[in-house]
Amino acid sequence: MATIKDIAERLGISVSTVSKGLNGASDISESLRQSVLDTAVELGYTTKQMRGKLTRKFCIFVENMEFETPDQFGYDIILGFKQLAFRENCSVTVTPITPDFQAAEKYDTYMLKNGYAGAFLLGLALQDPWIAQFNDSSLPAVLFDNYIRKNPAVSYVGTDSFEGIDDAIEHLTGLGHTRIGLINGSPNSMISYQRRQAYIDGMTAHGLPVSEDIMPYAYFVPEAAAPHVDSLLSRGMTAILCGNDLIASGVIDACAARGVRIPEDLSVIGFDDIPVSARLDPPLTTIRQDRLESGKCGFYALNSLINHVPISKTLLRPQLILRGSTGPCSR
Amino acid sequence: MATIKDIAERLGISVSTVSKGLNGASDISESLRQSVLDTAVELGYTTKQMRGKLTRKFCIFVENMEFETPDQFGYDIILGFKQLAFRENCSVTVTPITPDFQAAEKYDTYMLKNGYAGAFLLGLALQDPWIAQFNDSSLPAVLFDNYIRKNPAVSYVGTDSFEGIDDAIEHLTGLGHTRIGLINGSPNSMISYQRRQAYIDGMTAHGLPVSEDIMPYAYFVPEAAAPHVDSLLSRGMTAILCGNDLIASGVIDACAARGVRIPEDLSVIGFDDIPVSARLDPPLTTIRQDRLESGKCGFYALNSLINHVPISKTLLRPQLILRGSTGPCSR
Repeated sequence: MATIKDIAERLGISVSTVSKGLNGASDISESLRQSVLDTAVELGYTTKQMRGKLTRKFCIFVENMEFETPDQFGYDIILGFKQLAFRENCSVTVTPITPDFQAAEKYDTYMLKNGYAGAFLLGLALQDPWIAQFNDSSLPAVLFDNYIRKNPAVSYVGTDSFEGIDDAIEHLTGLGHTRIGLINGSPNSMISYQRRQAYIDGMTAHGLPVSEDIMPYAYFVPEAAAPHVDSLLSRGMTAILCGNDLIASGVIDACAARGVRIPEDLSVIGFDDIPVSARLDPPLTTIRQDRLESGKCGFYALNSLINHVPISKTLLRPQLILRGSTGPCSR
Repeated sequence: MATIKDIAERLGISVSTVSKGLNGASDISESLRQSVLDTAVELGYTTKQMRGKLTRKFCIFVENMEFETPDQFGYDIILGFKQLAFRENCSVTVTPITPDFQAAEKYDTYMLKNGYAGAFLLGLALQDPWIAQFNDSSLPAVLFDNYIRKNPAVSYVGTDSFEGIDDAIEHLTGLGHTRIGLINGSPNSMISYQRRQAYIDGMTAHGLPVSEDIMPYAYFVPEAAAPHVDSLLSRGMTAILCGNDLIASGVIDACAARGVRIPEDLSVIGFDDIPVSARLDPPLTTIRQDRLESGKCGFYALNSLINHVPISKTLLRPQLILRGSTGPCSR
């Protein structure tokens, strides 16, 4: 359990200032007070006063996604959600789930049994048992990167893959690349279908050829990259887009093992901009999604659903972050 | 200028209760207080206290859209925006604009000159001078029913045409209709392109034929309907989707003049669910968009942009409202 001292150290301010922030004293600025509260939420510090006024219980379900440390993809998404939830006096429970967990109990039953007013679900796969149940559930739910048609109780929050991948292709064509492959994530993921379509659209818009053998599905882990790197290099690709940064890091590893230089021989672009991207060798050019804001949008959408505002989709803009893994085409 | 009495009459409560709501007294409920404040905003009632703490100035620009009375399309959109703006202590100016107005002064110049922190723009046409300027503007702007690619300072708010039109086609096919035409709005409108594509997708998904001659563009006014009604009836259509409720009301008028019975001879579906829809003869089946919530989403998106959260799109779910203008196919 965190202490006031932990909050003070994290923010580089005095313990007494933290106390003022937590107690709503009037002689510190509103923005500093908010930083104190946001950090308290991040570190899991609560006071009796904070716990006493809770109005609603929410659950964040997480699958196929790491979220325990700031380096991991899910951390900021959950943090953003929690920070807004705290401001609205809602409690948040984070529950890791599996397909077996979902098969063992219906989503609605689990929610009602635990008294949850709504859910935010991260990382669910298309074939997961609960996904089909969202077609009929009347409990407010926001899905990160999953979309359910026509159910006004369910909302989709994510980042616009189409603009991000189009930006990446534009960047590569500007460097002279015309043979650009895609190593995609899992085929059991809505976001993989979306990124595949975005790749096809972007390539087509730039007058570049696409074919099945240059846009393989893989998995969202580094180890999935190597065999596809061989295949794409043998097909003459000079640039590879990746379904996420972890796949891109696997491409970089595979190239190092094969003596393929990045970016001289091959340009590589990731997706997400997780913290490790900037520390890879070379640092990774990637399509950034703002995960803290995604979490905040998730809370806003969930709060809207609870107030019977049927928000269907909230999409954030991606941002192409240019680093050392892309360069001029040498062929 | 409205008085406290006007607010009391509108809500059916006493003047003293209104006073309590306006003054933040603790002995009325939070929801009643909010109703008092929302109604004060709607009627344009302000107190010195309310005006004194304003933090930001926003402008709502309106073109090609009526908004003066509750019966008109734009009224609730503007009201929803204003109600949230008021809660955040922001002032809102509503400025009707024309293409000439836009040609006379650049968007950025106008905004800066007037000290506006952000804008909400309703009803702009694709060829409007300001639309092209949104590609490069760095001032926060939210466009209702217009989408600008790749500019993180600009956001799009609207209702998902695809789900709405698919629902409508599903309803009609359930009634036995297979020959379904579309009288669309103006071709100089993003939303018309979207609804046309939604119609093509929906018809195709239901295995029904589409062709250019059964999906004409018109304008978003009743008078635009008549010639297209003749054309669609001569092509054997038994149902007509309309780009908005005003076009649908024109279809109903044209059918009355021609002795075509609705829904016995022809089913008609509108889009929007403006108040008059329920009072047409027969009452209109239509795809509802929640305009009050659209306005609120507009404010939320604008506030997000101001805080550097690059929300790209916020889409609300449509809702198919079933009334008397649709019935079983008689052929």
